[in-house]
Amino acid sequence: MKTINNYIEHTILKPDATVLDIEKLAQDAIRYNFFGVCVNPNYISLTKEFLKESIVKVVTVVNFPLANNEIKMTQYQAELSLKLGADEIDTVLNISALKNKDYKKVVDDIKKTKEVCSNNNLKVILETDLLTLDEIEIASNCAVEGGANFVKTSTGFVKNGVGATVEAVEIMHKTVKDYGLEVKASGGIKDYQKASALIKAGATRLGTSSGVDIILGEE
Amino acid sequence: MKTINNYIEHTILKPDATVLDIEKLAQDAIRYNFFGVCVNPNYISLTKEFLKESIVKVVTVVNFPLANNEIKMTQYQAELSLKLGADEIDTVLNISALKNKDYKKVVDDIKKTKEVCSNNNLKVILETDLLTLDEIEIASNCAVEGGANFVKTSTGFVKNGVGATVEAVEIMHKTVKDYGLEVKASGGIKDYQKASALIKAGATRLGTSSGVDIILGEE
Repeated sequence: MKTINNYIEHTILKPDATVLDIEKLAQDAIRYNFFGVCVNPNYISLTKEFLKESIVKVVTVVNFPLANNEIKMTQYQAELSLKLGADEIDTVLNISALKNKDYKKVVDDIKKTKEVCSNNNLKVILETDLLTLDEIEIASNCAVEGGANFVKTSTGFVKNGVGATVEAVEIMHKTVKDYGLEVKASGGIKDYQKASALIKAGATRLGTSSGVDIILGEE
Repeated sequence: MKTINNYIEHTILKPDATVLDIEKLAQDAIRYNFFGVCVNPNYISLTKEFLKESIVKVVTVVNFPLANNEIKMTQYQAELSLKLGADEIDTVLNISALKNKDYKKVVDDIKKTKEVCSNNNLKVILETDLLTLDEIEIASNCAVEGGANFVKTSTGFVKNGVGATVEAVEIMHKTVKDYGLEVKASGGIKDYQKASALIKAGATRLGTSSGVDIILGEE
């Protein structure tokens, strides 16, 4: 049976993360048997070292958090991240293209990123704090069409953003479930109660820097 | 004589910037004769189009705002940005390496980025909100050693960050001036008074999304 630890991608993405921060993240992930850790590309190699001989996966982020790349830059980041040992890639939706109603470009960017990822999971972050409910549905459909494996709510870096909400996860889950995509909730998930509510709404992964607090809150 | 408009890099880096936002940015830059505009890599080509037949420069950002790239990713972003028509590159210091006291890595990353930039200006963002005053001085020295053309204060994306301060600009200016580097102040510059104070402290460029307000505030 899947217990809450299996949902968690234990996460550190802050720009001033140190080697000690990454070491602790990896140790906690092994100790609590989390699904994975999520780190920036510059720490993939080190994280792999700390995790060796464990089954904890390494997730990383590209085109993150501003979705400001030319698509070739995102492809290069994804390609190199996989070479360095990342198991899964989280990218950010082309938010500007969505706002420009250039949905073809939104889908195309996802397709081109998925090409590079091959069999590795690709998650597309919608950045729901910046979208209307209608746009969340449109973006989810773009992720389906682009061949993504997951839609994900948030980067956690929007000023005054709230991150994952039950409402957003429900819309995303409803839109993608018939096409075999899953939902990762992320941003502002700090306790067991919030984590449970998001899982109930349809999330099968949780991105959080409070993985240990969530586990301890269950007991 | 250099007037305040010549200091300004009129800036939009938000993830949901639209084509209309970029068009207005370019029009304002032409109208007020700003030094340049600063846009994300995904808008370089469009910005160049809006600016054609003007002398306004195009500045872009790489390894931004989290300083989370493997260095090869930053090199690729800079290389492609220049090909797309960017005139200057603003990158973020390897903040994690600085916090790990791995100053060799900090310098090395700047050197490798400058190699790609060749004669185009490279600015190194220190992200002063995350540094102590001592670290601001160390980081400025690393930028000198790495061959950067500018040190720059802030990305504008630190949660609860204040951005450019007179104190930070003074330390940066004092540290780099004898080596021919200049200082770009950025983050939270919203009016003429603040802009003037930062110039007085040693800044020769201002990154701001309030370029027009600053000009109008002078009158």
